[in-house]
Amino acid sequence: MKLMISKHELNEAIQQVSKAASSRPTIPILGGIKIEVTHQGVTLTASDTDISIQSFIPVERDDIVNAHVDKPGNVVLPAKFFVEIVKKLPSDNVEIEVGAHFQTSIRSGSTDIQMVGLDPEEFPVLPSIEANELFQMPGDLLKSMIRQTVLAASTNEQTPILTGVLWGLHEQQLKFVATDRHRLASRTAHAETAMDYRFNNVVIAAKTLNELSKLIPEQNGLVDIVVADNQVLFKIGNVLFYTRMLDGTYPDTSKIIPQQFKTELVLDTKKVTDAIDRAYLMSREEKTNIVRLTTLEDGTIEISSSSTELGRVTEQLEPSQFTGDPLRIAFNSKYMLDVLKVIDSENISLGFNGAMSPIVIKPTDHAYNTYVILPYRTTG
Amino acid sequence: MKLMISKHELNEAIQQVSKAASSRPTIPILGGIKIEVTHQGVTLTASDTDISIQSFIPVERDDIVNAHVDKPGNVVLPAKFFVEIVKKLPSDNVEIEVGAHFQTSIRSGSTDIQMVGLDPEEFPVLPSIEANELFQMPGDLLKSMIRQTVLAASTNEQTPILTGVLWGLHEQQLKFVATDRHRLASRTAHAETAMDYRFNNVVIAAKTLNELSKLIPEQNGLVDIVVADNQVLFKIGNVLFYTRMLDGTYPDTSKIIPQQFKTELVLDTKKVTDAIDRAYLMSREEKTNIVRLTTLEDGTIEISSSSTELGRVTEQLEPSQFTGDPLRIAFNSKYMLDVLKVIDSENISLGFNGAMSPIVIKPTDHAYNTYVILPYRTTG
Repeated sequence: MKLMISKHELNEAIQQVSKAASSRPTIPILGGIKIEVTHQGVTLTASDTDISIQSFIPVERDDIVNAHVDKPGNVVLPAKFFVEIVKKLPSDNVEIEVGAHFQTSIRSGSTDIQMVGLDPEEFPVLPSIEANELFQMPGDLLKSMIRQTVLAASTNEQTPILTGVLWGLHEQQLKFVATDRHRLASRTAHAETAMDYRFNNVVIAAKTLNELSKLIPEQNGLVDIVVADNQVLFKIGNVLFYTRMLDGTYPDTSKIIPQQFKTELVLDTKKVTDAIDRAYLMSREEKTNIVRLTTLEDGTIEISSSSTELGRVTEQLEPSQFTGDPLRIAFNSKYMLDVLKVIDSENISLGFNGAMSPIVIKPTDHAYNTYVILPYRTTG
Repeated sequence: MKLMISKHELNEAIQQVSKAASSRPTIPILGGIKIEVTHQGVTLTASDTDISIQSFIPVERDDIVNAHVDKPGNVVLPAKFFVEIVKKLPSDNVEIEVGAHFQTSIRSGSTDIQMVGLDPEEFPVLPSIEANELFQMPGDLLKSMIRQTVLAASTNEQTPILTGVLWGLHEQQLKFVATDRHRLASRTAHAETAMDYRFNNVVIAAKTLNELSKLIPEQNGLVDIVVADNQVLFKIGNVLFYTRMLDGTYPDTSKIIPQQFKTELVLDTKKVTDAIDRAYLMSREEKTNIVRLTTLEDGTIEISSSSTELGRVTEQLEPSQFTGDPLRIAFNSKYMLDVLKVIDSENISLGFNGAMSPIVIKPTDHAYNTYVILPYRTTG
């Protein structure tokens, strides 16, 4: 293998794939980046077997030459050092040459690097996925669906299925749900698919979705999605992102979201966020994050928290709507803030069924999001 | 005590002083900010007894009213919560009122905070320093002298005196020196003082100087400095910064800087920094940070490092000057990078006396900095 390649193009592709390289590999090959060179271009792949990312650099793109291939071939290089050194090479031209026993020379300007390469035959084989059931989504919609649900996924590895986000598709309605049993987030969107195309119990780890989200560029473009047997493939431009689905059956959450409420409030999202944020600062001192919401007789709302050592924060809010019974309820303010920070609606509605029942939070501008938080059962 | 104060002014003063409040106070009062209100203005003070910072907000500045004082008085409030809550208050007007037992109300917009205040009589008394031996320095010069020396101070608390930077003044020449016994940094500057004003063995903790540096604004202004018996006072605008000197006698470093060299090189600062940075990436894998510098027969320089698992980095550099004996020397590349990153000169000179003797690094543009790094004694 021998080629000249643009440092800029190489660096960009390395940054894209390197997230899939294992940082503490059980075997060295999983901490590597595979480089495959053909006369068409250079393919970089990293894989920790749970996720795999592949990026392709064509020899030419838009009449700009990215690479000159002298001799095709394959090698695997240790990711950590390779990622950092390429960024710092002195010239935009990088020559890579692989000799006997995968000994690799990288030359750029007056820099000469000899790297111990690994045998590409030992590198994990990517899942083969047939693209007959492909559907497409705008990148920014996918990013926002991820951002609005991952917050409720569990971080406790003892219930692995709950560390994921559940995807379901039914009659062109795509739905993401996440819950850690204390709170739930759900987001729906219309998807341009065949009317009879459907899937359910597709569960993808929240941390994988966060990595995927970073690979989706800000400017709008379409992401191709293929849901296969136990793998999902995302295609973002020249980048392929493969992930394993989580094993197991996601619990049925459809019945835990109340539809009727004894008390309903509509509040300005920014004002209630700021008020709970201040109350949170005090509640944090007690390590409980307990904040209370109380409806007052004059129709206003009081948000409050207290700490025996520090004192007390009391906030007054005027709801634009207040129907139903008076209420006094306590909740985890951190959970509430997580929800309020991702809701993109000027106003929110809060639905309650007394101090012991789930709190339902929804945007008022649209019906795509539903959030549920279980209250604290406190005395007094 | 009762007053109305601008949130912006209050917040700025809190940010300035809060660094001196102890984050893990041995007694609660040391984790507090003292607020003293008179008809002239509001003084905030924090002190962990090693350093104390005081900031004054005049009731009026440049015809803008910052505060309305209804009733003078004093209180101490827990810093951590106070710092964060003031930043987040909803209105620019903040009312502070202290009642019985230092119970403090803070009101802003629809927010009402009750804080448990502490008795100001228990707060540490600031050192009284007479300002007869005051001298002045441009703030940016002081910042740069700090930045160019703290890197060589020790982080090992077992030799406390070496965790500081030594200050000396003699015949209008101010000198900072820091060393951890493996490397030394020194910086001199002309100071506008009386010709016979002098001091020596003034040692200030490097971490204190870093905090001081953050308080000095970017735009140029003068900093007043008063060196007293065991305290140094810095006056930066409305802010007073007091620090204790470190106890003990700083070792004499005057004899460890060689003046004659068997080999001398002049190199482009950016090129040598980049080359050593790449070699460092490889050396880091071995945890030793060992990089070698070798003079070649053709008058060029080779910088290299190697790792048994990863491979080898070799860099070629062309010195603009090379006099004396051929050389092969090994050093800690991290120490060298720390020096190269703070030298403000396009070229540097390196002086050597063989593989076992200290390396001296100096800028070529001026004579204000001298750095020394001890080499590694390696085999081969």
